[in-house]
Amino acid sequence: MKIVLDAMGGDFGPAPNVEAAVQTAREFGYEIVLVGRQELVRPLLVQHNTANLHLPIVHASEVIEMHEHPAQAVKTKKNSSMVMGMQLVKNGDADAFVTMGNTGGALAAALFNLGRIRGIHRPALAAAYPTMKGWSLLLDVGANTDVKPDYLVQFALMGSIYAEKVMNVRNPRVALISNGEEETKGSQIVQDAHPLLKAAPINFTGNAEGRDLPAGNADVFVTDGFTGNVILKLSEGMKTMVEDLLRNAFMSSAQGKVAGLLSRDIIRGAMKKRLDYEEVGGAPLLGVDGVVIIGHGRSKARAIRSAMLRAAEAVDRGVVDAIEKGLEALPKTSTSESRVPSAN
Amino acid sequence: MKIVLDAMGGDFGPAPNVEAAVQTAREFGYEIVLVGRQELVRPLLVQHNTANLHLPIVHASEVIEMHEHPAQAVKTKKNSSMVMGMQLVKNGDADAFVTMGNTGGALAAALFNLGRIRGIHRPALAAAYPTMKGWSLLLDVGANTDVKPDYLVQFALMGSIYAEKVMNVRNPRVALISNGEEETKGSQIVQDAHPLLKAAPINFTGNAEGRDLPAGNADVFVTDGFTGNVILKLSEGMKTMVEDLLRNAFMSSAQGKVAGLLSRDIIRGAMKKRLDYEEVGGAPLLGVDGVVIIGHGRSKARAIRSAMLRAAEAVDRGVVDAIEKGLEALPKTSTSESRVPSAN
Repeated sequence: MKIVLDAMGGDFGPAPNVEAAVQTAREFGYEIVLVGRQELVRPLLVQHNTANLHLPIVHASEVIEMHEHPAQAVKTKKNSSMVMGMQLVKNGDADAFVTMGNTGGALAAALFNLGRIRGIHRPALAAAYPTMKGWSLLLDVGANTDVKPDYLVQFALMGSIYAEKVMNVRNPRVALISNGEEETKGSQIVQDAHPLLKAAPINFTGNAEGRDLPAGNADVFVTDGFTGNVILKLSEGMKTMVEDLLRNAFMSSAQGKVAGLLSRDIIRGAMKKRLDYEEVGGAPLLGVDGVVIIGHGRSKARAIRSAMLRAAEAVDRGVVDAIEKGLEALPKTSTSESRVPSAN
Repeated sequence: MKIVLDAMGGDFGPAPNVEAAVQTAREFGYEIVLVGRQELVRPLLVQHNTANLHLPIVHASEVIEMHEHPAQAVKTKKNSSMVMGMQLVKNGDADAFVTMGNTGGALAAALFNLGRIRGIHRPALAAAYPTMKGWSLLLDVGANTDVKPDYLVQFALMGSIYAEKVMNVRNPRVALISNGEEETKGSQIVQDAHPLLKAAPINFTGNAEGRDLPAGNADVFVTDGFTGNVILKLSEGMKTMVEDLLRNAFMSSAQGKVAGLLSRDIIRGAMKKRLDYEEVGGAPLLGVDGVVIIGHGRSKARAIRSAMLRAAEAVDRGVVDAIEKGLEALPKTSTSESRVPSAN
């Protein structure tokens, strides 16, 4: 297993990336290629004991910063860690690319350098979403703000394959996020996608409402990247809110402080287990012709390690090939392009 | 103050409606017109002490059920409590209409019977949304699954006026929900709405992300009815999830049970205060030519009473007139109809 890690990606620079690379190489015997500015990466790497570990550095002189315009940055910064890292995968020199950097940049770099799997309209970013019952997959969470019904069908298929192959869910239940359970509910695009999803070779269970997400009432939740992004960030925000509410409540009285001391670890444990957006680490970019995992900018070493493990699983289980094969089983809907006006 | 209450509305039938009507009439001296099937309403009403209270019953032989097709039901059931109730407001026989019934039905009945305020493209359903800092207003939460940029601008204006007049917020901060803070982020419709919102006579503070909602980083959050509905139901679902998580965590050990006993009221208080979707009771339907408040189907008497109080406030503070006046100050964007293709 040979994974390229964008050493420059994320809010904390190369340090947590290097730390995670060393850990993962040691723990699993993977070769981790650190792509980034060697004058920054090497001094960090030599601080670790890397004897017998495979941790080559590939020098990339440029960095796509968090707030750059994605497509433009990818086009002009040919020597950036993202572009060079994707090229290593493209050329068969590595199995997967992992980054905690600019999500839009990673998406653009993947599209330009790896390209789409043949037949895929748009790649989708999929997030593992914590629920009462474990983990579900939510996609798209930000790659496509405007979609067409056909895109949603492909997202559903890709999500179903990923859930089955990597998340070990047998015959995953796939639901379409809408503003009501009935199939007549939803935006026009969602209503148009509904019959297509019914006809697709997946275990489509119908529409899901917002409350079905935390309840874990499906294994794969399909939506556009706008709604998916709002869902993900709202969920994170509510977690923060609940933590703050509880902290304030316990601190506001003497009895509360005592109860808080007794309860703190119990509450932390409960919240950690089911409201932890760091555990899983990275979101797979499904539909590009290679394994790409994009993690949170705020990721520390543990989350970066998780993202690399997800990448290794996606490689091992042949997710890209499975999506390619799955597409062949999808009914062709050649009229779709003209059926719904696009806002793109 | 004369409020029409749909005595048939909600999941629990006339009983909680009658109870709330009696309470509200007694507490505030309002006249509450109970519209519904008198053979069901009268026996409930006589169980209460209604001496000196103004609680007339207007007989409506039909009911729009929770799962009927809204527009169709409204057209065929002329003697339904919703249609007859709206007519009372339309004819000036009452000041406001309040229902816990079928949201789509209430929307259709309001459109057919009260009509829109002149110049309003689409009415929007606004929900009071609990945040760390108090309450914000979220709209639309379900009246319009597909919108145009101009609709969002009108939602923003109506929300700003309602927040100022009824929620007592001075110069309300109005934010547009998107998948990123930058004004280049968002679906095409959201991106197109951004400059229009900047030019509107409101305190527009830019895009808000999902996490800004629980943080209360704006007073009015503007979005389409699809996204708004998902936000509202996801928030409710997360509240339920957190409650279940904490309950399970405390029950899973002996120490936990002790800590749970000490903490129960503190946690309940904290959750109740800031994650309570029942307190405010009803969502105003803004943009129709009359005061209409639509409550949750699961509402009990306390929530129905709250909805009537919201209605009375909207009447007292002249929300409908203020929206009509506010529209005049909005820059005209006559090209908007052709600028963005509609999926309607």
